[in-house]
Amino acid sequence: MEIKVVRQILEWNENCHEELQKEFNEKKILMLNIMGSPGAGKTTFLTRIIEALRDEYKIGVIEGDIAGKIDAERIANMGIPVVQLNTDGACHIEAMSIKNILPNFDLKDLDILVVENIGNLVCPAEFDIGEDLKIALLSVPEGDDKVEKYPLMFSRADALVISKYDMKDYFSFDEDRVIGNTLNMNKDAKVFKVNSSKAQGIDKVCEWIKSYIKR
Amino acid sequence: MEIKVVRQILEWNENCHEELQKEFNEKKILMLNIMGSPGAGKTTFLTRIIEALRDEYKIGVIEGDIAGKIDAERIANMGIPVVQLNTDGACHIEAMSIKNILPNFDLKDLDILVVENIGNLVCPAEFDIGEDLKIALLSVPEGDDKVEKYPLMFSRADALVISKYDMKDYFSFDEDRVIGNTLNMNKDAKVFKVNSSKAQGIDKVCEWIKSYIKR
Repeated sequence: MEIKVVRQILEWNENCHEELQKEFNEKKILMLNIMGSPGAGKTTFLTRIIEALRDEYKIGVIEGDIAGKIDAERIANMGIPVVQLNTDGACHIEAMSIKNILPNFDLKDLDILVVENIGNLVCPAEFDIGEDLKIALLSVPEGDDKVEKYPLMFSRADALVISKYDMKDYFSFDEDRVIGNTLNMNKDAKVFKVNSSKAQGIDKVCEWIKSYIKR
Repeated sequence: MEIKVVRQILEWNENCHEELQKEFNEKKILMLNIMGSPGAGKTTFLTRIIEALRDEYKIGVIEGDIAGKIDAERIANMGIPVVQLNTDGACHIEAMSIKNILPNFDLKDLDILVVENIGNLVCPAEFDIGEDLKIALLSVPEGDDKVEKYPLMFSRADALVISKYDMKDYFSFDEDRVIGNTLNMNKDAKVFKVNSSKAQGIDKVCEWIKSYIKR
């Protein structure tokens, strides 16, 4: 299958986030920005969200990666429109790149656009890219001190998703510490616990996402 | 225990890496730069290295974190000289910050200086900070596609350390893919497999480190 691969563009436009939000509101597209460390389970989580919502909603995906198109291939194999954005080394996605990619989608036919950001707990947290909701994944194997060490990501997230939750017995992971530290900074954050490999906990995330659908 | 906390400085000096290397060579200090994703197990790995080498060598540590001093406390509790470098949001450590911190150590008494970089598979790979050896950790739960997705880190590492190796049975992790992809880009990279929680595999890493000791 031919997958469209686009490179990150370097122009800077401070207002691009707001421009994109305006466009997504006009076109009634819900835009989700999924973030987390390398290996937090973002792509598997996304495939489960797609499986649960695809019968009801039209979904498009932008896969951000430094290099390669491994993740876009997974999404394309599901028959979902996807564009691979390669940042060629850059550590985050910028709004201008999203704007640049939009013509690859049939926007009037889309209900949800999901961006899977670069695997990085630091830089993507600083950049708004037109999203309605920021979803931050933290996987159990990463450890329970990550909210304290990477506060910006979790202070800005609309939802904290604790992923690989089935691994809780194999790692020392105090979920109260993680959730407490998140809510201390960010009292409105939603908290979900998922095991994407078995689609556990995905229903609650989808219920929450559906409450933001625009049409 | 009082822990020295230093902030990242913002000056830029292109030659600082070479200046630091020269100083570490003159003072016969081996400098290690430990990198990897958030939760790859860098700090636990470092505590095991310290335990194995501390009777023979004088070790100092610079702990890099966006915020907080959780890791520096762990090292300080071992009775090892440590400085916490807080980058206040920045995604990597720069050589100038290392230079700025050095006066906090008794350099003429040091054999090994270890820098634990910010948890990030992207940005730290781009910045030389005076090190003799770059050590890149990849933990089994992160998945076996990370070398392809974050090639710079693994192409520049002197050693690839596959950490949390005891978790191999619980995750789908093809180590041949990881090692093959690393060696394809970086044929001289050493490969180690460790389970830091039980100090397994640490002896081989230490043997390799010892071969670079300068005095």
